[in-house]
Amino acid sequence: MSFTHFDAQGNAVMVDVSAKAETAREAVAAGRVTAAPETIALIRDNRVGKGDVLAVARLAGIMAAKRTADLIPLCHPLALTSVAVDLALNEAEHAVEITATCRITGRTGVEMEALTAVSVAALTVYDMCKAVDKGMRIEHVRLVIKTGGKSGPYQER
Amino acid sequence: MSFTHFDAQGNAVMVDVSAKAETAREAVAAGRVTAAPETIALIRDNRVGKGDVLAVARLAGIMAAKRTADLIPLCHPLALTSVAVDLALNEAEHAVEITATCRITGRTGVEMEALTAVSVAALTVYDMCKAVDKGMRIEHVRLVIKTGGKSGPYQER
Amino acid sequence: MSFTHFDAQGNAVMVDVSAKAETAREAVAAGRVTAAPETIALIRDNRVGKGDVLAVARLAGIMAAKRTADLIPLCHPLALTSVAVDLALNEAEHAVEITATCRITGRTGVEMEALTAVSVAALTVYDMCKAVDKGMRIEHVRLVIKTGGKSGPYQER
Amino acid sequence: MSFTHFDAQGNAVMVDVSAKAETAREAVAAGRVTAAPETIALIRDNRVGKGDVLAVARLAGIMAAKRTADLIPLCHPLALTSVAVDLALNEAEHAVEITATCRITGRTGVEMEALTAVSVAALTVYDMCKAVDKGMRIEHVRLVIKTGGKSGPYQER
Amino acid sequence: MSFTHFDAQGNAVMVDVSAKAETAREAVAAGRVTAAPETIALIRDNRVGKGDVLAVARLAGIMAAKRTADLIPLCHPLALTSVAVDLALNEAEHAVEITATCRITGRTGVEMEALTAVSVAALTVYDMCKAVDKGMRIEHVRLVIKTGGKSGPYQER
Amino acid sequence: MSFTHFDAQGNAVMVDVSAKAETAREAVAAGRVTAAPETIALIRDNRVGKGDVLAVARLAGIMAAKRTADLIPLCHPLALTSVAVDLALNEAEHAVEITATCRITGRTGVEMEALTAVSVAALTVYDMCKAVDKGMRIEHVRLVIKTGGKSGPYQER
Repeated sequence: MSFTHFDAQGNAVMVDVSAKAETAREAVAAGRVTAAPETIALIRDNRVGKGDVLAVARLAGIMAAKRTADLIPLCHPLALTSVAVDLALNEAEHAVEITATCRITGRTGVEMEALTAVSVAALTVYDMCKAVDKGMRIEHVRLVIKTGGKSGPYQER
Repeated sequence: MSFTHFDAQGNAVMVDVSAKAETAREAVAAGRVTAAPETIALIRDNRVGKGDVLAVARLAGIMAAKRTADLIPLCHPLALTSVAVDLALNEAEHAVEITATCRITGRTGVEMEALTAVSVAALTVYDMCKAVDKGMRIEHVRLVIKTGGKSGPYQER
Repeated sequence: MSFTHFDAQGNAVMVDVSAKAETAREAVAAGRVTAAPETIALIRDNRVGKGDVLAVARLAGIMAAKRTADLIPLCHPLALTSVAVDLALNEAEHAVEITATCRITGRTGVEMEALTAVSVAALTVYDMCKAVDKGMRIEHVRLVIKTGGKSGPYQER
Repeated sequence: MSFTHFDAQGNAVMVDVSAKAETAREAVAAGRVTAAPETIALIRDNRVGKGDVLAVARLAGIMAAKRTADLIPLCHPLALTSVAVDLALNEAEHAVEITATCRITGRTGVEMEALTAVSVAALTVYDMCKAVDKGMRIEHVRLVIKTGGKSGPYQER
Repeated sequence: MSFTHFDAQGNAVMVDVSAKAETAREAVAAGRVTAAPETIALIRDNRVGKGDVLAVARLAGIMAAKRTADLIPLCHPLALTSVAVDLALNEAEHAVEITATCRITGRTGVEMEALTAVSVAALTVYDMCKAVDKGMRIEHVRLVIKTGGKSGPYQER
Repeated sequence: MSFTHFDAQGNAVMVDVSAKAETAREAVAAGRVTAAPETIALIRDNRVGKGDVLAVARLAGIMAAKRTADLIPLCHPLALTSVAVDLALNEAEHAVEITATCRITGRTGVEMEALTAVSVAALTVYDMCKAVDKGMRIEHVRLVIKTGGKSGPYQER
């Protein structure tokens, strides 16, 4: 078992996917931002008319997915065909739940794009709410589903 | 209690900091990537000579701090004077621990820069190791310390 | 009368503002997107609950203001202290009216930042609505007010 | 009739083009910058030897077309195969006329790329000339021709 | 013999590659940074444990290859499938030798991506070492091999 | 003698300049592109009317200076107050000579900005001419003058 992002001398490399076939690929990632109950209530109460934190974070997540190769050093630049980011309030657990789904027909997977979308959407929730709650935390950012590609499907257990 | 990033009509705005004084500001953020014990061992064993995951992630985090205003819609563009990102293996808890410290003399804080550095360093750890462990998770991304600025210091409890 | 962005040999140059004093500066720009009456009605009807075109365009305008120096070859990179973008429906004239206000304490003005915010907000309105109306037009993008700096205030007549 | 950039709940989405076929696509956009007659004369007189405003704006437009997906939140990242931007003086109407043509073989159209190229070329003309004429205006930015793709050709009337 | 990046009127254009077939393409570029012998010794001595200049420069080169179309005005945006950057100390000639290899299946070559990777890796070596040696020089940045595409293979003599 | 860009453990760091005073700083860098005599003649003959390679490269260099902190991992983001790039034909030595001058009032120097401007201008010359001459080389990229800052002036010998 070894890392694919280093060569035999330990030098960082972008994995060569030139010989891979283009296939339909999808990745779903998820995460959450936990906050004080009052913060979650404030996000909820402001959704209609006074300023929708979740809508801003959704856009930030979508735009960040497109910047993944600029941010993650060894990621391939990819022409994503679909990015969707969903945010929902989980009032019982005082959290904003975030899910991102990315698709491409390409030579490499889009896990990092989905994870980046979730992370930047979460950071944006933090930014929008930090004046009222600096104790928020980003938790459980993870890959949920991956399909397409030679390594076979992945499903979070 | 209300959000600073919306005006009275609920429109998203960048907070106007024109009238604020320039002061020395610092923010420390932290987070971790949890992984299978074998993955943590592999990261450890590869540090000397075969490819240093943590060194790649450190650079990615530093570079991402500089891109914060590109990623987070309502963040101000800032001329950071210092960014440091530290990654360390926590073998007992099967985790990579990440800390980022940002400094500026400016009109607004650098929390988002530190949190972005931690998040992108964590995403880079995921990217480097995902061929061997897709079940890794990014956890506990949070603000640890904030000093400078009118709102007073913040210290994670 | 001559251009400031060329030297005596006609070579493009970034104007040297090193010797200028830092002063408080503001610029207001405006413009509009004209559309079919049905398109304007659709934007209006979708604002509550079904998808707010103007909110997406507002964010795009704010983010674009921060990218001005990346887009306009001879613009100085600036640390904007405030960006506000407003969009409103003008149903009588079948248009979306867009205004952007930028502020900085710096050595050079922020007209281009305000104009870039208006233009990208307008382009985003077009993008969001183009499936139903390809005949929309961006009109009257112009500087409305400029204050601060040696050249004195400017007010659109 | 509804917007394609929102889902049934009104959340902004990037349209999923994964299932679309790759076809040859082209878009032509146009617009103009109006200015004082003296400004147009100055642009004309400086073209040979003293600094070519139109050449700088042409390059800015070409480069901006490549940044479209960074600027317009729900645009897909695209590997453009051709971008051409033309600028010409219209002395009779005291204007700089701008046209941009983009091409791709891909799953989605390039209207936004052409419109972005026109807009940024126009902004660059403004920037280059604003020291002598702050009253310039960007007008009539619009789609002229679109071919390729399922929705059929579009021709400005 | 004429330039491909200008039209008949001398206007800069991005070459239209829409009609070209997608083929496998590769480019190898090389260059070096010359330095004082003490600087080369310091780089060598720090490689283990104290800070690896070459590893930082390698990552910078890989990331820069992905930014080529942002930097070089008339370059096409490309979805690179492989980027490798190698740096080695040439102690006899007091130099850091840099090689970059880029691959793609596409309509245009990747020479500029390989040359950009070498240049930015070299600039990064300079940046890392400039506190001890401002007299370093970047030399011999050139195309070594190019394969694929209609114009046939190129091999540096 | 040691590197400033690594901490005591050998981790890459952005140098902390928070405590430095803001002073006027300038850096001049230079370099050249060598080419076949026919290529130099073609650049010269095309300058009037048929397409000015040097004007395109000048703009690319200016724009690249503004992107330096995006490219060089440990560079600070800076608000440059002046960037000038000059290109001249040296027909006797079959070369394009490139010089870049950057200025700032800030806490850190602008050597990297000037060197990046030279490098990207040189790469752009290569790109514009590569269809006629793949054997061009970028040579002698170096710091010529540096003033301002605690370490004192530097003058190339």
